[in-house]
Amino acid sequence: MWRAHRVTHDAPKQRDITVSSRQSKFPLPNDGLIAALDIGGTKIAGALVDQDGVLIHRARRTTPARESADVLLGAVYDVLGSLAASPLWERVGAVGIGSAGPIDLAHGTVSPVNIPAWRNFPLAESVARHPDVGHRQVTLAGDAVAMTAAEHRHGAARGHRNALCLVVSTGVGAGLVLNGSVHHGLTGNAGHLGHISVDFDGEACPCGARGCLESIASGTAITRHALALGWQAPLTADTVGVAASAQAGEAAAIDAFDRATRALAAGIAATAALIEIDIAVVGGGVAQAGEVFFEPLTRHLRHYAAMPFLKELRVVPAELGPDAGLVGAAVLASAGDSAVPVMLGHGSR
Amino acid sequence: MWRAHRVTHDAPKQRDITVSSRQSKFPLPNDGLIAALDIGGTKIAGALVDQDGVLIHRARRTTPARESADVLLGAVYDVLGSLAASPLWERVGAVGIGSAGPIDLAHGTVSPVNIPAWRNFPLAESVARHPDVGHRQVTLAGDAVAMTAAEHRHGAARGHRNALCLVVSTGVGAGLVLNGSVHHGLTGNAGHLGHISVDFDGEACPCGARGCLESIASGTAITRHALALGWQAPLTADTVGVAASAQAGEAAAIDAFDRATRALAAGIAATAALIEIDIAVVGGGVAQAGEVFFEPLTRHLRHYAAMPFLKELRVVPAELGPDAGLVGAAVLASAGDSAVPVMLGHGSR
Repeated sequence: MWRAHRVTHDAPKQRDITVSSRQSKFPLPNDGLIAALDIGGTKIAGALVDQDGVLIHRARRTTPARESADVLLGAVYDVLGSLAASPLWERVGAVGIGSAGPIDLAHGTVSPVNIPAWRNFPLAESVARHPDVGHRQVTLAGDAVAMTAAEHRHGAARGHRNALCLVVSTGVGAGLVLNGSVHHGLTGNAGHLGHISVDFDGEACPCGARGCLESIASGTAITRHALALGWQAPLTADTVGVAASAQAGEAAAIDAFDRATRALAAGIAATAALIEIDIAVVGGGVAQAGEVFFEPLTRHLRHYAAMPFLKELRVVPAELGPDAGLVGAAVLASAGDSAVPVMLGHGSR
Repeated sequence: MWRAHRVTHDAPKQRDITVSSRQSKFPLPNDGLIAALDIGGTKIAGALVDQDGVLIHRARRTTPARESADVLLGAVYDVLGSLAASPLWERVGAVGIGSAGPIDLAHGTVSPVNIPAWRNFPLAESVARHPDVGHRQVTLAGDAVAMTAAEHRHGAARGHRNALCLVVSTGVGAGLVLNGSVHHGLTGNAGHLGHISVDFDGEACPCGARGCLESIASGTAITRHALALGWQAPLTADTVGVAASAQAGEAAAIDAFDRATRALAAGIAATAALIEIDIAVVGGGVAQAGEVFFEPLTRHLRHYAAMPFLKELRVVPAELGPDAGLVGAAVLASAGDSAVPVMLGHGSR
């Protein structure tokens, strides 16, 4: 069954990257599993994932984010080895990776902002070289794109042909569903909503632009803004604390959520005006604040998405929680998404 | 040859809208022409257009923009009748319309902001009912989407799989090319760059939002801003005058272009971050200002499109000029674009 996917590591003329609509002709067997990896600045998570998006066997390491490229890869190999030690490993048909970005799908490399030792690091190829991976196909995507694939297949964006899925936590990440398929973009970085400017004369962002959405609407920005407005952290100085104060009616905390949700509403409305999405799905730590977040976000969206053709646009909470990255990496590695760039054994060029 | 496209007007069960990839199986004969209409708030233009995008026979009427819906349709019929009077009419295989928006592709209707009597007006069906149109297929698209199709097929976006095409004149309109095809969006209004907010706490826009790009970067806004900065119009108080003053080194005029191009750069960069376009094509009256417009636009784009994956993004002038709408309406009505929603004889539901 899997032979069609297998390529030998020593076939130098083998095309190393294919946009594989072929995959759908060779679907996973019904009992097939995907080995999924979710690689971020704080943790490296792994799981064996079934066709329904259920995580069957898990592994996890803290990301040695300040260590060398080799030590980092060693941690990824630890997680992979732990998955491969499962008796279920023989049912694994492919490996899917969701990684913090930016990534470069054209070369199979990653350069995560919070992992300084990895710059243009050949992650896809390195994973493909792990002895237990063998000749299994390895697929790479950005973490927010993976989350989007998960919410589109199994979560709140199910059935929508055009959707925006956001993760609002310490940063702001996002991915797009266009015409029924996850949209990676040429380099895999499409959906970079955190770095669109919603305040073109605003504060300088570390990226080089001004007024980037992330610098106004992330959890970090909400906390900073609340403190600047005189908020006294009763518990911890983070969005959990700000949310508790907002729920208790404290003006500074309410104002901090108000400003962030106005900026987010502007960014979501911009996306809708550009490509006509009809749903925005929001997950991540900040979205956990619940009504103090979603009530103003929904209210402001009515003002920023004011054009008549946007009147159906809705914003809803994500359904899949913190495992969305793993579930999505598995979705993208499995048979159903013909828009997925697939990395074969020989990853980098 | 054309029989496959023909539907009878009295076939009530006929599907009235198809997203026709079928069309590409029935391409225009090499000598086939398209009758194109470009309907805006100031003029109704028509032309017979050949396969190379060359306008062979033209007709034109001033839009009776303040008149009734019927008088407006009469003007459209005049233009159509004038085209049909040409001996070339028998070579016309289909009719393409580009209309000022918003439009509603799901219903074949238009509600142009500057044509008050047309609200949800069944333009596609009305054109299909013109006696000379007969059973020819009628295609409707937004005017900026049509311009985008023209620049993608015959102009500056040729060969680009992902592009943004803008018209900066009294307003700001735009369209998108995604994965090689023009992206209409579900209702035909995708690419609405003029109403994305680049200043989420900014001035109220008539659309209901705040800080819309159009309200900062349109020709109207540039002139207004120059006057507010103390610019004394030497000739006419429009962007031609502001451009002349900017060229002469007058600070207020330079500042007015600077602010508008910063806002435009932010909007173009936002589009690129969201969907990974690699080229932005800018036409329209304001772009005619040349270097006083493109120099600051290019410079500011480097700052707003600062993420590494956007470093290839370029901005270039449109190639097709004021006929782009007609050329694009013809492109969309001809065989090549499988993403085109096609309106058959019975237009509205």
